[in-house]
Amino acid sequence: MKNTQINVIEEINLDNPIFIEALPGIGHVGKLAADHMIDELGATKFAEIYSPHFPPQVFVGEDGIIECMVNELYYLKSQGENSQDFILLVGNTQGLSPEGQYELCGLILDFIESYGVKQLFTLGGLATGKPVEETKVFGAATNLENIELLKEAGIEIRSADGGIVGASGLILGLGKLRNMSGACLMGETPGYFIDAEAAEAILQKLSLILKFNINTDELEERAEETRKLLNQAQQMEQDMVNKSMGQSDDDLRYIG
Amino acid sequence: MKNTQINVIEEINLDNPIFIEALPGIGHVGKLAADHMIDELGATKFAEIYSPHFPPQVFVGEDGIIECMVNELYYLKSQGENSQDFILLVGNTQGLSPEGQYELCGLILDFIESYGVKQLFTLGGLATGKPVEETKVFGAATNLENIELLKEAGIEIRSADGGIVGASGLILGLGKLRNMSGACLMGETPGYFIDAEAAEAILQKLSLILKFNINTDELEERAEETRKLLNQAQQMEQDMVNKSMGQSDDDLRYIG
Amino acid sequence: MKNTQINVIEEINLDNPIFIEALPGIGHVGKLAADHMIDELGATKFAEIYSPHFPPQVFVGEDGIIECMVNELYYLKSQGENSQDFILLVGNTQGLSPEGQYELCGLILDFIESYGVKQLFTLGGLATGKPVEETKVFGAATNLENIELLKEAGIEIRSADGGIVGASGLILGLGKLRNMSGACLMGETPGYFIDAEAAEAILQKLSLILKFNINTDELEERAEETRKLLNQAQQMEQDMVNKSMGQSDDDLRYIG
Amino acid sequence: MKNTQINVIEEINLDNPIFIEALPGIGHVGKLAADHMIDELGATKFAEIYSPHFPPQVFVGEDGIIECMVNELYYLKSQGENSQDFILLVGNTQGLSPEGQYELCGLILDFIESYGVKQLFTLGGLATGKPVEETKVFGAATNLENIELLKEAGIEIRSADGGIVGASGLILGLGKLRNMSGACLMGETPGYFIDAEAAEAILQKLSLILKFNINTDELEERAEETRKLLNQAQQMEQDMVNKSMGQSDDDLRYIG
Repeated sequence: MKNTQINVIEEINLDNPIFIEALPGIGHVGKLAADHMIDELGATKFAEIYSPHFPPQVFVGEDGIIECMVNELYYLKSQGENSQDFILLVGNTQGLSPEGQYELCGLILDFIESYGVKQLFTLGGLATGKPVEETKVFGAATNLENIELLKEAGIEIRSADGGIVGASGLILGLGKLRNMSGACLMGETPGYFIDAEAAEAILQKLSLILKFNINTDELEERAEETRKLLNQAQQMEQDMVNKSMGQSDDDLRYIG
Repeated sequence: MKNTQINVIEEINLDNPIFIEALPGIGHVGKLAADHMIDELGATKFAEIYSPHFPPQVFVGEDGIIECMVNELYYLKSQGENSQDFILLVGNTQGLSPEGQYELCGLILDFIESYGVKQLFTLGGLATGKPVEETKVFGAATNLENIELLKEAGIEIRSADGGIVGASGLILGLGKLRNMSGACLMGETPGYFIDAEAAEAILQKLSLILKFNINTDELEERAEETRKLLNQAQQMEQDMVNKSMGQSDDDLRYIG
Repeated sequence: MKNTQINVIEEINLDNPIFIEALPGIGHVGKLAADHMIDELGATKFAEIYSPHFPPQVFVGEDGIIECMVNELYYLKSQGENSQDFILLVGNTQGLSPEGQYELCGLILDFIESYGVKQLFTLGGLATGKPVEETKVFGAATNLENIELLKEAGIEIRSADGGIVGASGLILGLGKLRNMSGACLMGETPGYFIDAEAAEAILQKLSLILKFNINTDELEERAEETRKLLNQAQQMEQDMVNKSMGQSDDDLRYIG
Repeated sequence: MKNTQINVIEEINLDNPIFIEALPGIGHVGKLAADHMIDELGATKFAEIYSPHFPPQVFVGEDGIIECMVNELYYLKSQGENSQDFILLVGNTQGLSPEGQYELCGLILDFIESYGVKQLFTLGGLATGKPVEETKVFGAATNLENIELLKEAGIEIRSADGGIVGASGLILGLGKLRNMSGACLMGETPGYFIDAEAAEAILQKLSLILKFNINTDELEERAEETRKLLNQAQQMEQDMVNKSMGQSDDDLRYIG
C-alpha cells in the first residue's frame, strides 16, 4: 500500500456543508465530542480513509475483532435553525510522519471541497497537565470574523500562544491557503484521561455557534465506555503520534 | 535500490493455499514456530523479498558468510486431513519505517493473492515481561467465524485489548480490506529470550486448527541453536524495529 | 499536499541581487537581524513558500489568528553605495527531515537563481551555552575571496571547526555546487533566548560588507516583542528542528 | 535537490577494477586507511556523489572554507603484482535514513558495475569500547572462497556474530544479490578516537590480499591531522548516523 485511499461508501449531495474535524488527540476531547454528535444526531458514514501514513498496526476491538487504522467521514443533514449540512471526520488515528500529515490533510481538503465545504471547525483538547476546576473552551481561527463568532459564544481566544500540532492545526492552515474559513475549539483538559467534561464543554459551544441542539446526558457514559474499550490501544496510539510530532510529556500545552 | 523486489525462484501452482506469516518479533515465537514447520514438514522456498525498507545492514552468519536482510516465501503441499496447500512467510527482518511496513505488507498481499490465498494466519508472541508459568495462546481475528475457530482450539480471545504492531497486525488489517479472512495467534512469552515453549504452544494450536500433524520434539534444540546463531544480530534487529515502531521496553505487551 | 509550492505574489526584476537567508535558528539571531532589515529598510514580500517538509502544525498569532508554517521572500532595492538589489529569505520554520531540507534548499536556489542571484549570505547564531561578554561574529565561506571579505570586516574565521547544520549551511553548500559564491555570518549567543545583541552584531558586519546603512536602535525593542509573541511557539519549533537534526542540548555549538 | 547525483569528473577506462569502500565509521578506521592509500599511491578523483540522503549540513574546513557533504570515487592503476585497477570510495558522510542508504548503495553499485567491477572490499572498524592491546583484523565475506582468502591473510573470521551496519555491510549485501564477490575487513578499535593503528592493521592485510605495497610510516601523522581537522565535525556526523541507525553507545560492537 503506497498511496492513501479514500473509499466512498455512499454517493451524496450536501447543502453548503460545514466540516468538523475530530481525530484523536489530547484527552480524546474532540473525538469524544464528535462521536457523540454522530450517535445522538444520527450521522451516516459515507467514506473511509486508509493510509500508509497511519501507524503500521491494528487494534483489537470487542470480541477480539481486528480493526484497521482508519479515518471516517460522516454526513449529517441540516440541524435546527441551521440550513447547512455537516461533514464530520473521526477515526482511531492520525498521520504519523510530518509529510504524511500534510498529504492526508491535503487529500481530505480536496475531498470535502468537492462537496462544497467552505467552513472548517476542528475540535481538540488543550492540556493543562493538572486538574481543571471549571472547563474553559479556548479558540483560534483563520480570520477575525471567526474570532468574533468564537467570542460571542463565550470562547476564550488564545493569542500569540503556542501552536496547534497535528490535523486540528494543519486542516485549518492548509484550508486557509485555499480561502476556506476555519476555527479551532479546544477544551481545557488535564490531558491524561478521556475527558467527558471537556468534550461536553466543546459541544455546548459548537452547538451554540452552529445553532443545533444536542443532548449531552449520555456523554459521561460514552466516555466511560471509551475508556474501557480504547484505554490501552489509544494510549499506545497517542504515544506514537506524540513521538512522531516531537512532543514529550513536557509539551502538554500543545494540541494533538 | 529504490523499490522492493520479489524474486520468484520457482513457478508453482497451489491449491487454495493458506498463508502463514511469521516474521521476527517478540521472543521469536512466530519465527521459531514457522522455521520448525518448514524443516519438519519439508517446505520449499519459492520466492525472496528484498527491500529498501529493511534495516540498512547485513548479518554475519555461520562461517563468516554475509546474509542480506530478506523475507522468504515457502510453500508446502497439503498436510493430513487438510486439502489446502500452505504459503509461509519467514525472514530475518521486517520493514523499518511505518510507510515501509505498509508498502511491504501490501506487496506481499498482492503476491500471495495471485496464488489464490483467501485465508491468513499470523504468528507472534505476546510479551508479559515476567516469567510465564504455563504458556497460553491468545488470538484475535478479522471476523467472528474465525474467532469461533480460535475458541474451539482453546485459544483465549483478546478483547478490546491493545493493538498488534507490525506485520502480524498489518497483514491482517490490509487483508481484511481485501476481504481476506484472517487470525492472529500469539504465544505468551516473557519476551526477552528465544522462547521454544511459546513456539510449541502456537504450533499445537495451529496444527489443531489447520488439521496437520507436526512433531515438536526438536523445537527446544532449534531454539537453542537459534539463540546461539542469532542472539546478537537479532537483538540488534529487534531494537531497531522496536525503535521505529515507537516501542520502548515498557511496551512489552505489544506484538512485534 | 505532496509538493513544496512557491507562490509568487509580485512579478519583479532585480539588479544582480544578493541573497540573504535568515530562517529561524539558535537564539533567533539571523531571523531577528533579517526581520529588522525588512522593516527598517522597507523590503517588499514577493513570494511565499509552503511545504510538506515543514512541521505539521500552525502557530496561533496575535488576536488568535492562525498562521501557517511559511518561508517568505522579500526584495529590497539597492541601498547606499551598493548598486545591487537584495532578496531576503525569512519565515517561521525550516524543513524538518534531512531530505526535506535538501529539497527545500534546492528549490529556493532554483528560484533565486532565476532572478540572477550569484552571491549568498546566510545569517545564524553560534551558541556558546553560557553568557557572552562581548558578542563576536564568526564567519565561514565558500571561497577564499569571501574569507578575505569577512576578515576585512573584522569577522573571526572559524577553521576546521564543526559544521553548519540546517538551511544556513545547506544553502551555501548546494549553492557552491552551482558556482554561487557564499558566506555565513554567525553571531555568538548563549543560545537560550532571543538575542538582540547578537543580531545587532551581525547586522553591523553585514552592512559593512554590503555597504548599506541601517539604524539598529529599535532592535532590542523588536527582540522583546519577538520574545513575547514567539516564545512558546518558537521553542516548540526549535525543539522539533533540533530533534530532526539529531541535535541534543549538548550540541549547542552547532548552528540551526 | 530531490535526487542523488553522481558527477563524473574524468572519463576513464579501468582494467577489471577492484572496489574498495571506506566511508566514515567507527574509529575512522576504514576512512583513514583509504585516505592514506589515495595519498601514498597517488589515486585520482574521477567522480563525486551528492545526495539528499546525506545530513543537511556542511563542514567548515581549513581556512573557514565550507565543504559539502560528499562521497568521492578515486581510481588507481594496477599496483605491484596485481594487474587489476582499483576504485576507492571515500567521503565525509554516509546516507542518513535507511531508505537513503539503500538508494545510495544501489546507485554506487550501478556506477561501479559500469566500470566492470566484480570484486568488493569494504573497510571498517570493530569497536571494543575498551583499549585494544594488539590490533586484530576481523573479516566476513559473501562466499567461502573469500573467507579462505581472508584466512590466508591471517584475518580472524567473525562467525554468526552480529551484523555490519551501514555502507560497509549494505554494499556487500546488495553486491551479493548482483553476483559480485565481496569481503569486509574490520580493524579492532576502542572506537572513541581516530585510530591509526587499526587503519594500519587493515592496510597491511589488504595489501597482502591485493598484492600491493604501501608505506604506512606517515599514517600516525595523518591520524593526528585528521583528529585535529575533523574531531568536532565528524563526531557530530557520527552521532547523527548512529542515531539514524538506531544505535546507541551500548552498540559499540556494530560497524558504522
